[in-house]
Amino acid sequence: MNDDLVDRLRLLRTAGIGPVTYRQLIMRFGTAAAALEAVPDLARRGGGKAPTLRSRADAEREIARVEKLGARYLLLGQGLYPRLLAQLEDAPPLLIAKGDLNLLGKPAVAMVGARNASAAACRFARGLAHDLGGEGLVVVSGLARGIDTAAHDGALETGTVGVIAGGIDIFYPPENEERQKTMFERGLVLAEMSPGTEPRARHFPYRNRIIAGICAGTVVVEAAPRSGSLITARLAAEAGREVMAVPGSPLDPRAQGCNQLIRDGATLIQSAHDVLESVAPAQPRLASPVQPYEAAPQPMNGDDDVVGIVEELLGPSPAPVDEIIRLSRGSPGAVQMALLELDLAGRLDRHAGNKVSLRPA
Amino acid sequence: MNDDLVDRLRLLRTAGIGPVTYRQLIMRFGTAAAALEAVPDLARRGGGKAPTLRSRADAEREIARVEKLGARYLLLGQGLYPRLLAQLEDAPPLLIAKGDLNLLGKPAVAMVGARNASAAACRFARGLAHDLGGEGLVVVSGLARGIDTAAHDGALETGTVGVIAGGIDIFYPPENEERQKTMFERGLVLAEMSPGTEPRARHFPYRNRIIAGICAGTVVVEAAPRSGSLITARLAAEAGREVMAVPGSPLDPRAQGCNQLIRDGATLIQSAHDVLESVAPAQPRLASPVQPYEAAPQPMNGDDDVVGIVEELLGPSPAPVDEIIRLSRGSPGAVQMALLELDLAGRLDRHAGNKVSLRPA
Repeated sequence: MNDDLVDRLRLLRTAGIGPVTYRQLIMRFGTAAAALEAVPDLARRGGGKAPTLRSRADAEREIARVEKLGARYLLLGQGLYPRLLAQLEDAPPLLIAKGDLNLLGKPAVAMVGARNASAAACRFARGLAHDLGGEGLVVVSGLARGIDTAAHDGALETGTVGVIAGGIDIFYPPENEERQKTMFERGLVLAEMSPGTEPRARHFPYRNRIIAGICAGTVVVEAAPRSGSLITARLAAEAGREVMAVPGSPLDPRAQGCNQLIRDGATLIQSAHDVLESVAPAQPRLASPVQPYEAAPQPMNGDDDVVGIVEELLGPSPAPVDEIIRLSRGSPGAVQMALLELDLAGRLDRHAGNKVSLRPA
Repeated sequence: MNDDLVDRLRLLRTAGIGPVTYRQLIMRFGTAAAALEAVPDLARRGGGKAPTLRSRADAEREIARVEKLGARYLLLGQGLYPRLLAQLEDAPPLLIAKGDLNLLGKPAVAMVGARNASAAACRFARGLAHDLGGEGLVVVSGLARGIDTAAHDGALETGTVGVIAGGIDIFYPPENEERQKTMFERGLVLAEMSPGTEPRARHFPYRNRIIAGICAGTVVVEAAPRSGSLITARLAAEAGREVMAVPGSPLDPRAQGCNQLIRDGATLIQSAHDVLESVAPAQPRLASPVQPYEAAPQPMNGDDDVVGIVEELLGPSPAPVDEIIRLSRGSPGAVQMALLELDLAGRLDRHAGNKVSLRPA
């Protein structure tokens, strides 16, 4: 068994260690093995109890299960891991993939929208996905009801990727079990969570960042205000990707989310041609290879006061890490280390946009 | 009878003297009377036959007719003439107005769209016009079928202006006769053509420039590609006004014009609030008084060669006047005069964007 993969899984599957913390630990300590050794000491310096590390046996069990399912791991920074996804600050350290991995090498566009979309919008989404597939684009969606289902169906012949919120072996919603199994054979399914994980509400935004992150752009087809599809659009925008939306009559409440997106700057989409026009120029810009772990391992900073200073600067409201570094007058490395220590001590919350807050006691 | 008005009408109603030529003549000669005297000589210098000037009797008859109709003239650069309209390069030298002239002093928004609009779009237009009226905006449209009719109806209680392509006493389409008469009483109707003029196809783009020109912005509600409403939108954009459009499903062919406008940069409109947000900041920028005839009368330039040089530089394709001035190495005044002479000789065509071409013989 691959020892490094076991160590990575032990670290990542430990409660309280999310993608950003994981990334920081690997950056600091070079390997998952070294990070695992350092965690207890770091947490103590952060003033809290060390998290209970996931056992070696647990990690080995997961690896065996993934193998048995006919799936495989994709590790951030290695091999087939999606190039554009690796650019996200909170890129998943690993993905579990089942299906045609060749699809990851092709340009992709996300299509998302309402689960309870109108029949007309579903028809439009299916046609748009079909046309995008005909133009050589892989269509990525979330295997949910409504627009997601229509998008996968429209692009099944040409190539479609489904990103799911639960484990790779969990079928949600149940009526999409056959569709997901078909995509194991003729498309690709990706999951961030370990096998057997039932999807919960909090998992869907994580899933959405992967959908947005894999793709050069995201098309929203029909979306209510404050819906998950708009979160995906926001995540796409934050990642510097194209945001596109299909308009509708102001008299149709289901069009309001998309119309508002367009008012906010999303490109109005009427056809596959419009999508190509938006996404094509974005490809070269994203062509440079990414080095997600580019920082060299750094020795621990001996300055014990930094944790105290950083702690004083933090409050319950999220503050940008850059601001904490500036106000602390410490070196970026020392402040990042202090944040990592507070994090592992269970005393830090990390937020989108590289912000942090002190967790209420 | 007002002699200056008679002279202006004689000049303006002469075949071949359009708004731009009229403006140039008044700028050169100070008064319509002086311009009338100069026309025959100018045309001869331009190498053509002088246009037959409209007779004094014809002009006096029109003035009497306008009075009898209970209408009145608005002269560019004077009194109640719409302030924003005066900024257009080809602003109508005069308008004939019947109704509540106070409406011209209020901020206005144009609403235009398809004559064969869907019932839903007409309902939306009526509601939008009503809401805009409630916010203190005058709603301007073209008294056509469909969206225009809905816009006038929605804003009848609060203030609406109809701009018509024919004479002030002509009702087109016939079913809008009652509506136009109601607007004589409770709104305002404007016409550029002389009374009795039946509207022809070529009159509608002229009418559209007035609709766009009076207003701080134009909202297009439902419009086919290559429709008159899109011309109005283009004229509004060229005049530096806000262009707004109401989106629709890509599956609805009647939404394509508006969706394309939005793709081209028009603001997506879902409600009166969206219109106000777009138009409100535009008001202060347009508040400075306009001096349409700001150039002092200039003596005729004695350089007879300029006509020849300008004529050589001109071709059948429209060329910018600025370019002709530059290439001719003549003074701007001399070149403008040469163009005026060619124009009055029936040998010049003037185009949008201050371009000119030689008329094919």
